[in-house]
Amino acid sequence: MDLTSIDNGLTGKGLLFVISSVSGGGKTTVIRGLMEELGDLRISVSHTTREPRPGEVEGRDYLFIEEDPFETMVEDGLFLEWAEVYGQYYGTLNTTIDSITAEGLDVLLDIDVQGAIQVKERRKDAILIFIVTPGEDVQERRLRDRGTESDDEVSMRLGAARRELAFINEYHYSVLNDEIEDAVDTVCSIIRAERCRNRN
Amino acid sequence: MDLTSIDNGLTGKGLLFVISSVSGGGKTTVIRGLMEELGDLRISVSHTTREPRPGEVEGRDYLFIEEDPFETMVEDGLFLEWAEVYGQYYGTLNTTIDSITAEGLDVLLDIDVQGAIQVKERRKDAILIFIVTPGEDVQERRLRDRGTESDDEVSMRLGAARRELAFINEYHYSVLNDEIEDAVDTVCSIIRAERCRNRN
Repeated sequence: MDLTSIDNGLTGKGLLFVISSVSGGGKTTVIRGLMEELGDLRISVSHTTREPRPGEVEGRDYLFIEEDPFETMVEDGLFLEWAEVYGQYYGTLNTTIDSITAEGLDVLLDIDVQGAIQVKERRKDAILIFIVTPGEDVQERRLRDRGTESDDEVSMRLGAARRELAFINEYHYSVLNDEIEDAVDTVCSIIRAERCRNRN
Repeated sequence: MDLTSIDNGLTGKGLLFVISSVSGGGKTTVIRGLMEELGDLRISVSHTTREPRPGEVEGRDYLFIEEDPFETMVEDGLFLEWAEVYGQYYGTLNTTIDSITAEGLDVLLDIDVQGAIQVKERRKDAILIFIVTPGEDVQERRLRDRGTESDDEVSMRLGAARRELAFINEYHYSVLNDEIEDAVDTVCSIIRAERCRNRN
């Protein structure tokens, strides 16, 4: 056994967190609260081929890039994850993440489920957090309670819930966003806990 | 996939936490702070064959028991973990843990390294937390910094540190008890995080 085998985030490389939610899950508000709580957490800035929107700042909100160089970077395998959404590319460079974690800082990736799955496949040490809305939770409980006594309405909801759950199970944590402050506290707890987790 | 496969501690059975430290690690103080923070966390009460000390209350501090029935219970495999310390038996019954977790409550086991290893072998879902003193941390850093340039003094310390680390690596988390409040906060964070961890 090597003495250096204790590397629980207090020393060495920073950790990679991925946060996703269903649409309307309040993820953006949670992340804003999180950044206020944890001053040493960095948000990963994505590359995109879409035009900047009013108020968006290069390097803060996105790194804006033309389509050709983006596609070349995809071919060169430079992206940890990327996706095409409404004809525009979005992606996170490996170097973006590595430059932050190499400094010993933890980095948060705010991406959708498809991106999260790509990250999980490529970075075994990534920690995936899913923000769940109360609606889904209530729905899940209700579906559970009803059991097999389903009508068309229930089975349609069950199908939707199953598709959601199939993704949630890919995540390491699911956080209920009922009260925003509680959700922020819980995600902070996850980050603090992971920082003292023994990785060996 | 089963809808019931999401069981992150919000529903269903409670979680089993094990907490240990080196002697003088401040574990007792941390646990006291923890119980104040988390009202819904239960401490497991051990069986012992030793005599009650002044002020100790049956059922609160220990369940006091004669040697013969203790040994019979050992033979019957009723203990999740047990040990003989200075000629006296100490042990945790499986039923003690199960009766608490079946209620959906999380339970904390305050035991030494040998007990923790027994629990880890028998309960794959147990979450093991080790309280580290600043002394060890400082020692570890110093030993790391010195690298291979060791004299007799350093190699003796290295040997001691290795024996400690061999145990720490069996634990899922190691929490530095520098400031007691920080240590309590960190253990609380671990418990809150584990409560929303997806177990599938």
